[in-house]
Amino acid sequence: MPEMLRLDASSADFDARLSELLDRAPEQSASVTQAVDGIVTGIRQRGDAALLEYTNRFDRRDVSVAADLEIPAAALASAWKRLPDELRAALETAATRIRAYARQQKLEDWEITDEYGNRLGQKVTAMDRVGVYVPGGKAAYPSSVLMNVIPAKVAGVPEVIMAVPCPDGELNDAVLGAAHLAGADRVFSIGGAQAVAALAYGTATVPAVDKIVGPGNAYVAAAKRAVFGRVGIDSIAGPSEIVVIGDGLTDPRWIAMDLFSQAEHDEDAQSILISPDAAYLDAVAKAMDERIAELPREKIVRASLQGRGALILVRDLAQAAEVSNRIAPEHLELSVAEPRELLERIRHAGAVFLGRHAPEAFGDYCAGPNHVLPTSRAARFSNPLGVYEFQKRSSLIDCTPEGARPLAAIAGRIADAEGLQAHAASARDRG
Amino acid sequence: MPEMLRLDASSADFDARLSELLDRAPEQSASVTQAVDGIVTGIRQRGDAALLEYTNRFDRRDVSVAADLEIPAAALASAWKRLPDELRAALETAATRIRAYARQQKLEDWEITDEYGNRLGQKVTAMDRVGVYVPGGKAAYPSSVLMNVIPAKVAGVPEVIMAVPCPDGELNDAVLGAAHLAGADRVFSIGGAQAVAALAYGTATVPAVDKIVGPGNAYVAAAKRAVFGRVGIDSIAGPSEIVVIGDGLTDPRWIAMDLFSQAEHDEDAQSILISPDAAYLDAVAKAMDERIAELPREKIVRASLQGRGALILVRDLAQAAEVSNRIAPEHLELSVAEPRELLERIRHAGAVFLGRHAPEAFGDYCAGPNHVLPTSRAARFSNPLGVYEFQKRSSLIDCTPEGARPLAAIAGRIADAEGLQAHAASARDRG
Repeated sequence: MPEMLRLDASSADFDARLSELLDRAPEQSASVTQAVDGIVTGIRQRGDAALLEYTNRFDRRDVSVAADLEIPAAALASAWKRLPDELRAALETAATRIRAYARQQKLEDWEITDEYGNRLGQKVTAMDRVGVYVPGGKAAYPSSVLMNVIPAKVAGVPEVIMAVPCPDGELNDAVLGAAHLAGADRVFSIGGAQAVAALAYGTATVPAVDKIVGPGNAYVAAAKRAVFGRVGIDSIAGPSEIVVIGDGLTDPRWIAMDLFSQAEHDEDAQSILISPDAAYLDAVAKAMDERIAELPREKIVRASLQGRGALILVRDLAQAAEVSNRIAPEHLELSVAEPRELLERIRHAGAVFLGRHAPEAFGDYCAGPNHVLPTSRAARFSNPLGVYEFQKRSSLIDCTPEGARPLAAIAGRIADAEGLQAHAASARDRG
Repeated sequence: MPEMLRLDASSADFDARLSELLDRAPEQSASVTQAVDGIVTGIRQRGDAALLEYTNRFDRRDVSVAADLEIPAAALASAWKRLPDELRAALETAATRIRAYARQQKLEDWEITDEYGNRLGQKVTAMDRVGVYVPGGKAAYPSSVLMNVIPAKVAGVPEVIMAVPCPDGELNDAVLGAAHLAGADRVFSIGGAQAVAALAYGTATVPAVDKIVGPGNAYVAAAKRAVFGRVGIDSIAGPSEIVVIGDGLTDPRWIAMDLFSQAEHDEDAQSILISPDAAYLDAVAKAMDERIAELPREKIVRASLQGRGALILVRDLAQAAEVSNRIAPEHLELSVAEPRELLERIRHAGAVFLGRHAPEAFGDYCAGPNHVLPTSRAARFSNPLGVYEFQKRSSLIDCTPEGARPLAAIAGRIADAEGLQAHAASARDRG
């Protein structure tokens, strides 16, 4: 078995050791930031010429006309047709479920009327154009395309622009087919900081968008941070995480594989099992030992579990929930007899999987909720990706001549106190 | 009258000139970023010692014990008692209205059940602890305290930590009184990048928060950008803006003062009037000429209007709406006969004021909607500050043993295509 860290929540140094385990908030590397600043400036100043130059250099391509960076709709449709029937059916069912869940998230207009007859409300509109970044190369995932594009289309965004790098010119049929299925409006074979900058500022070929979502490597993350303000961004994604709280009665072999499913993403991914049953921690460790041989990605799994994984012994399930809240995990499995009871104690988690029959993998692909979730403890303050990330609210203030009078007096009085005389006069004009 | 830019939407160079007028997305100054990085590092490494050092240096203070940076609750209560009765009453009414509007914004839990009996939903929780930054010095506004603190308390945040700089040790009774009224849990007399860093990382004295909201100067904005990811932030605030669309039938003197109310904030504030009636643009210009003498802040108003203001002639109200959508203003007044009709055409605005009797000043103080709004065209992609900024969602996935079977097959098939075998096995374990 991979040697995993063992912690006991009752030991004196537990807090310190847990902090150490979690201490990997996304940091900015000065060299990455500097490189990205140069790329963003290049795109702003030289547009398509810079985009071609960076794309050819970083993705080892040989494109001479910027228009060729666009993948035509017909190519997406034929990629879709080339997929095996069974995979197409699975993606279609997944898309239908993701869409059904997303529809529940739509923000709606509302309005209230105050005692003076003034109407106060909220109007919701979709964004005009958004960019979806999809990682390419070895981590080219059709599921990410569905999870990013579908909520934008459900929100009513007329133009969803997808960027996916094609290192060495390699295109992935499943990714392109998923773009066709999800309804991406235009797709460009660009990636890295240059793709983010092109989407934020626009070039002659790539249209400027209002918001950029989707995960990426350190360069993509730094570019998103740099263009934030010019456009909206979702969040800075870090390595993926899972916490499983087990009462000791789920098949240890299942939990072993759930932990592996997180660890197989990359060496930085984090898998943590928390249980009040020490024997169960041993049983899961033994099951991992047995099942790890099933995995072609064994090496990554071992590195991830040894470097970042942990088995944590707690007093009881209440303490398990406390520890989990400190971790604020991206994914949380409550593999216990009464998951709804335990859920009451959970304050921070991107997605919660309830019961023994809801592994994280369902959420990654087809349960319906989005798989783009806050990482690196960001579940303390942020949301899963959703329709609401592609809509925005405008406040509405609609006053009657009579209703304006009391407001004029109040606004005038506070404006006086703030020394803003034009505010006061403007309010009192309606008094 | 201040010489204001005049644009005609029918002229050939209109698009280019409008772009020029709007081109002031928040930019990062390298020297500010560098200074802020140093301050953030200082706070992370040396905590309270650095916080004291920066505060004494930048705010010209002489505090030797970090605990003295906290303003005790009793001091807030006595500041409140010292305010004039009439101001207290105005602030109380404003707070009641802000609270009533905020309650409408609360996100709620929901759940759906699929055809297999699996339950999918969303659980909403308040953040544990948030920081509210309130600018100090000459721009110390009690209204900002209400607008930032009240939604956090309505969301159910147990600990709202407020930071307000006290340059030269000066405390503002109205600001402290508003903190008492709004229910801020703890208040520290700290500001600038050092306050943002202390809230993000925590020191022995200042507790670490999960999210930081509130406007500030370029150093505060750069610090928020730097700590983003470690904590949540609201947005990077730029100068304030108003667009008024006038049909020509509102008293020009009212509109003149509405434009002034924006311009008096600072030299970078932007006031734009759009109308299809050229004579009306002249009439408002003349009214500005007459009323500017009323204003103690005349100099700021003139600088703002000359540097950033504009009077824009359009063909009709439909074109006015198009121009306004390009501007995506923070505040938009629809000073027309049928504002609801025109509202249909408005896609991007932080707050919309409908009709002749709803000046922006009502929204700044007491109408109810928040006055913290997206600036610098960010209304294309972001929201007014609201209760939803202090809550977050967790997705819920709850499967029955029977409901898990079809999901296992779909997830397994897609995981196969993505080459993630542990995902596939974990899903199929439940099949």
